[in-house]
Amino acid sequence: MGKNEQVFSLKAIGKIHTPFKTLDDIPIQPIYARGIKGRVSLFPEYAEGLRDLDGFSHIYLIFYFHKVNDTHLRIKPHFHNEERGIFATRAPSRPNHIGMSMVELIAVKKNEVFVENVDILDGTPLLDIKPFSAHIDFRPKSKRGWLSQYDDE
Amino acid sequence: MGKNEQVFSLKAIGKIHTPFKTLDDIPIQPIYARGIKGRVSLFPEYAEGLRDLDGFSHIYLIFYFHKVNDTHLRIKPHFHNEERGIFATRAPSRPNHIGMSMVELIAVKKNEVFVENVDILDGTPLLDIKPFSAHIDFRPKSKRGWLSQYDDE
Repeated sequence: MGKNEQVFSLKAIGKIHTPFKTLDDIPIQPIYARGIKGRVSLFPEYAEGLRDLDGFSHIYLIFYFHKVNDTHLRIKPHFHNEERGIFATRAPSRPNHIGMSMVELIAVKKNEVFVENVDILDGTPLLDIKPFSAHIDFRPKSKRGWLSQYDDE
Repeated sequence: MGKNEQVFSLKAIGKIHTPFKTLDDIPIQPIYARGIKGRVSLFPEYAEGLRDLDGFSHIYLIFYFHKVNDTHLRIKPHFHNEERGIFATRAPSRPNHIGMSMVELIAVKKNEVFVENVDILDGTPLLDIKPFSAHIDFRPKSKRGWLSQYDDE
């Protein structure tokens, strides 16, 4: 660890509920999460922050990989023989166990957000929600490195 | 704060260097960050995790808004009279001060990542880097709620 290293405290602001009860249940590629429904339950004191969210069709969920304790700077993705740098993957065993998924927003009711296309473990602590905007987040001409071997799948 | 609230420790894994030396310098919309160059300097012990990243044209930087201490569940975006729920915005005064920006990747050299289109304060602590993949992250038919008033800009 670097001597300049700062530490920050983050808190769960809610929980994510999905059909995936164990790590083995989770789809290994987000494409297989299509149609999977989930419910993001914010602690009631944060409900007010959800105002206006229902105008967005897609949102980012930022969460904490609470079942992952190890860190690897190189990992072998599923079904691969070659190691990749951890920052070139979405694997959970990162230096900070922060996860990010873009999901489809179905409805907001009080402190609950109903979503679809979820690839997250049931019970995962929520850290943040951010709106997706194609104007901000979309790059039509983007290259995706080693992942491009899947382009025909 | 909810009694069920869990707290997680995250650590800086590097620093983000940009031309924006004060909060007032930062563009209020990411579109104004086009062409702005930045340098993400990971602490050397994490350099190995950058392997394979250079095949991607765009990456997400996940960082900590270290100059922001307050939390508001509703905020008035710049030049607006109407309050919005914080989760329907990218404003920094969130329950967890996590920021996320998608930037263009120019080059990776040892423990440094050279990027473009940056709207981040100089000296910001880096928490994570994730690759952008249009296959995973692009939603062509998305609605962007209250932000759509800017669609003609």
